Amino acid sequence: MKMIDSLFCMAILLSLAASGCGGGSSEPAAPAYQPTNPQHQAMFQPLPKVMASESNPITEAKVTLGRMLYYDTRFSKNGDISCNSCHLLDQFGDDGKPTSPGHDGQLGVRNSPTVYNAAAQFAQFWDGREPDVEAQAKGPVLNPVEMSMPDATAVNKVLKGIPGYAPLFAAAFPDAKTPVSFDNMALAIGAFERGLVTPSKFDFYLKGNGTKLSAEERAGVTTFIEAGCSTCHMGPLLGGNMFQKMGLIKPYETADKGRGDLTGNEIDNYFFKVPMLRNIAETGPYLHDGSIASLEDTVRLMGEHQLAKPLTDAQVASIMTFLPTLTGEIPTEYIAMPELP
Amino acid sequence: MKMIDSLFCMAILLSLAASGCGGGSSEPAAPAYQPTNPQHQAMFQPLPKVMASESNPITEAKVTLGRMLYYDTRFSKNGDISCNSCHLLDQFGDDGKPTSPGHDGQLGVRNSPTVYNAAAQFAQFWDGREPDVEAQAKGPVLNPVEMSMPDATAVNKVLKGIPGYAPLFAAAFPDAKTPVSFDNMALAIGAFERGLVTPSKFDFYLKGNGTKLSAEERAGVTTFIEAGCSTCHMGPLLGGNMFQKMGLIKPYETADKGRGDLTGNEIDNYFFKVPMLRNIAETGPYLHDGSIASLEDTVRLMGEHQLAKPLTDAQVASIMTFLPTLTGEIPTEYIAMPELP
Repeated sequence: MKMIDSLFCMAILLSLAASGCGGGSSEPAAPAYQPTNPQHQAMFQPLPKVMASESNPITEAKVTLGRMLYYDTRFSKNGDISCNSCHLLDQFGDDGKPTSPGHDGQLGVRNSPTVYNAAAQFAQFWDGREPDVEAQAKGPVLNPVEMSMPDATAVNKVLKGIPGYAPLFAAAFPDAKTPVSFDNMALAIGAFERGLVTPSKFDFYLKGNGTKLSAEERAGVTTFIEAGCSTCHMGPLLGGNMFQKMGLIKPYETADKGRGDLTGNEIDNYFFKVPMLRNIAETGPYLHDGSIASLEDTVRLMGEHQLAKPLTDAQVASIMTFLPTLTGEIPTEYIAMPELP
Repeated sequence: MKMIDSLFCMAILLSLAASGCGGGSSEPAAPAYQPTNPQHQAMFQPLPKVMASESNPITEAKVTLGRMLYYDTRFSKNGDISCNSCHLLDQFGDDGKPTSPGHDGQLGVRNSPTVYNAAAQFAQFWDGREPDVEAQAKGPVLNPVEMSMPDATAVNKVLKGIPGYAPLFAAAFPDAKTPVSFDNMALAIGAFERGLVTPSKFDFYLKGNGTKLSAEERAGVTTFIEAGCSTCHMGPLLGGNMFQKMGLIKPYETADKGRGDLTGNEIDNYFFKVPMLRNIAETGPYLHDGSIASLEDTVRLMGEHQLAKPLTDAQVASIMTFLPTLTGEIPTEYIAMPELP
């Protein structure tokens, strides 16, 4: 009886495999098996589970502390701004505004980028002026139009004035002579941010399950590559690994010279870090100045200013079908706002 | 009589202007006036006269000293290698070898790039590890497989052991406490290199004289843009202002991970500085490892590995028509080997 069952079962399985059907005959037919396009796999890569760093190993104690510091408004001049004020963890890591209000409501000049997956980038900030999220974390704290603390000493004073932080810093930095410090604050926030990864169905697709994307979405990936978008938006983040000139083909009117303003070299004028496209459908408005509200308009604008041939309506539509597959899952438990000391 | 002469002259000029002819009627007809294509002017820019630096102003005394140091073999371990050994100023600034022999004939792993126009790049070396030519100049001196000096102190000792250099360093660095130093050597070499500019007929074309390029050459520029080459090879140098992945579309077999080897970050693997195309027809062999001898093969290889669609034979031919217009004039007088102290 058992033997007969097994044979029967195997026959069913073989028949299913031959038909390419993964479901039972009474259920709606699952899509036919579709291998992942090797060109797509070569161009993009799945996100890692965490974005590790040799110089700042991730530990539970650092992440616990970093998560608190990320939400803590007390080391801003008016005590009202935290990392999460502009990079909202429950809103795909940014604030949805063209530029963000900082100290006394002052607006910055560049759009706040999402913090999700940001640690895997080759450099931080729109102009790439810091090498990693640890160095990045210090910038807004001391920026006069953001959190506006006068200097590292002032931040240290705030941290030391909150007794509950002392044991948490000690646990996170057991070998440090003075665990509570601005430097270690940045390391803890960085360690926390290295876990802010948002895998999406595009990752399952890249790992080999081609069926995870519909035929239209797969075609969108091909359109994206063939139109030239992936010359700059490639790799695991679809961006975040190079600088490129804004207005490459057709000059783009912007007062912001990007890296040129940073280095003072004319050759760097209008170069910006190519932004990642992970969660792009949820992280508008777009461009370095947040001046474009619609993703579709942004895609069209990229075609006009960055590509040798402007995108056709069909190409824009196809790319717009693909981009939402990059919207990932927010790690709700990991980001839950903790009780602060 | 004078009046008649003037009127006669004006009539001739008007007639010449109307016919678009710049020569007399007895000479062969000059090509019809052709404005420079504005798209070409937006994408590329003419070379500057000198590549200035705020942190290292060019002075005659520095250039005089830098030119000597550039040719001086005495600060290599065996006394047989100078900057000019690998970057030959009378051979378009490189040595025409895949990789260059250094100390005791050891070969480096990367192709020696041309020194001409190099100072205008956004970063130096194939992996961009130094920001400017002044910092670059120190690298080969201390590299064990290149000039192989043990350290800066040893270089200082050599420099101080040549009494004729003392007044030259003093003139070049009048405010320095100790003018003769490895640091100042690098500044002087850098100042000299900032004058190594090679304008070509492409620059006259970009400045507005469209007739400077033939119809085929102008078509080649358009092919270069439309095929996507200028996404990375743009600006005054047609490169030298960004990093890009080698094997962007189709992986390229190379043991050298470029910036990945420098930073240790996986996201930087196979990224190299996009090489300048100024004088490209004269500076083979090509690629970071000098593995491709022919420029045409390199263009085809770029099409295969870097572009969404491989180049057609007609596109390759058109681009090959354009590239030699980037071969510039070597500033013979400026680079003449001086008598060394």
